[in-house]
Amino acid sequence: MSNPSAAILIIGNEILSGRTQDINVQFIARRLADLGIKLQEVRVIPDVPGRIIGAVNELRAAYDQLFTTGGIGPTHDDITSACVAAAFGVPWEPHAETFALMAERMGENFNAARQRMATMPRGATPIRNEVSLAPGFSIGNVHVMAGVPKIMQAMFTALEPSLPRGTPIAMRTVYGMGVMEGSIAAGLSAIQDRFPELDLGSYPFRRDSQGGVAIVAKGTDVPALEAAIAEAASLIAAQNTVPVQGEPNP
Amino acid sequence: MSNPSAAILIIGNEILSGRTQDINVQFIARRLADLGIKLQEVRVIPDVPGRIIGAVNELRAAYDQLFTTGGIGPTHDDITSACVAAAFGVPWEPHAETFALMAERMGENFNAARQRMATMPRGATPIRNEVSLAPGFSIGNVHVMAGVPKIMQAMFTALEPSLPRGTPIAMRTVYGMGVMEGSIAAGLSAIQDRFPELDLGSYPFRRDSQGGVAIVAKGTDVPALEAAIAEAASLIAAQNTVPVQGEPNP
Repeated sequence: MSNPSAAILIIGNEILSGRTQDINVQFIARRLADLGIKLQEVRVIPDVPGRIIGAVNELRAAYDQLFTTGGIGPTHDDITSACVAAAFGVPWEPHAETFALMAERMGENFNAARQRMATMPRGATPIRNEVSLAPGFSIGNVHVMAGVPKIMQAMFTALEPSLPRGTPIAMRTVYGMGVMEGSIAAGLSAIQDRFPELDLGSYPFRRDSQGGVAIVAKGTDVPALEAAIAEAASLIAAQNTVPVQGEPNP
Repeated sequence: MSNPSAAILIIGNEILSGRTQDINVQFIARRLADLGIKLQEVRVIPDVPGRIIGAVNELRAAYDQLFTTGGIGPTHDDITSACVAAAFGVPWEPHAETFALMAERMGENFNAARQRMATMPRGATPIRNEVSLAPGFSIGNVHVMAGVPKIMQAMFTALEPSLPRGTPIAMRTVYGMGVMEGSIAAGLSAIQDRFPELDLGSYPFRRDSQGGVAIVAKGTDVPALEAAIAEAASLIAAQNTVPVQGEPNP
């Protein structure tokens, strides 16, 4: 089974200003790995129509799936939905079913601003979810979700069953406390050469006053992953350090 | 004074796999705002030569300054430096001064892997710093830094005095606890129209069991910022909620 590819597009002045720490990428990245979808790119761009339209069209052509976060609320700076319509060259119009549902639930509070949240590109399918009355939506291979993490997570969870899948991308890690990357680099490179189908990464870290290196193997062939990690553990052991296998950092 | 533009390029398999939560963007974004440099884009791409070379060339042409993080260690997956040389079309060669310095300090431990960290594109200027013996480097408008946050921060701090500056980009925020975005959207849009030179953003949030909205004004004209935020505070007050002005969320 091959692995579909994906990108995330974050429409986010608040990320570019440093006001907000994004945590959506990590959530989506992990869920995509479980689904066997290869995340190949993340972009953060400002709330500017030309930038959004351009990036949506570039990324939906380059990857099998595109996930956007942010810019689908009721305020003047929420322009993602209209920009996605422009990117697809279709009208941006009230989505009848969503409009009726929101009108019924919100009554007189369903004002012009909130009606924008029931307005979608023609042909879009709403992503209804457990947290927010206003849905996200999918059109073609583009999935438009909220920026607020709890709502985005609910939308992703609702969307998940309809996404294409590949062989899950597994990860194994071995830690060497006190080991310096430069001392094991040659051995590590030889392991990567022996397992060309895996991504073998080396990540130095510091935790409190201790430092070390994490060797991470990633791929779809679990026996190969485990063999590569066993070899990396031997490299660490040869540095007079007890290797610790474990889950990737949370 | 105008504001130079900038992009961040994260060379990061570990971000795309969801293994690591990036925290470098927020650090750089805030420092750039203080310097008056407008962060216009962030990209995360995998450790693949063609992707790195392509993105470096695209982003260094599109923006005044480009900051990269990740991929400058001693291991086989650290290919950023060689790729930046390829992007500039210059040789990747030992940087004599850095080579001598590292050889002196590391003695017999200055092996082939570590020598890669003293190898740079021809014409690069090292970014020496207080944390790491191996420097980052600048070439043209591209600044190549480590991915480990502590080292990246030290490199950025060392680099900062040589960066171009603009009018600092200031931010003011007012919070309305319990206020719904949809109820103030029309008023907010009118404020944005009256202050077209500012970026006015509206961000719903939940904190513990309480929710509300943060209205954020961003720009270089501080009196205008404060006037816009005062108007937004009046909007919130009209919802029978006491507006709270404050610093942006940490």
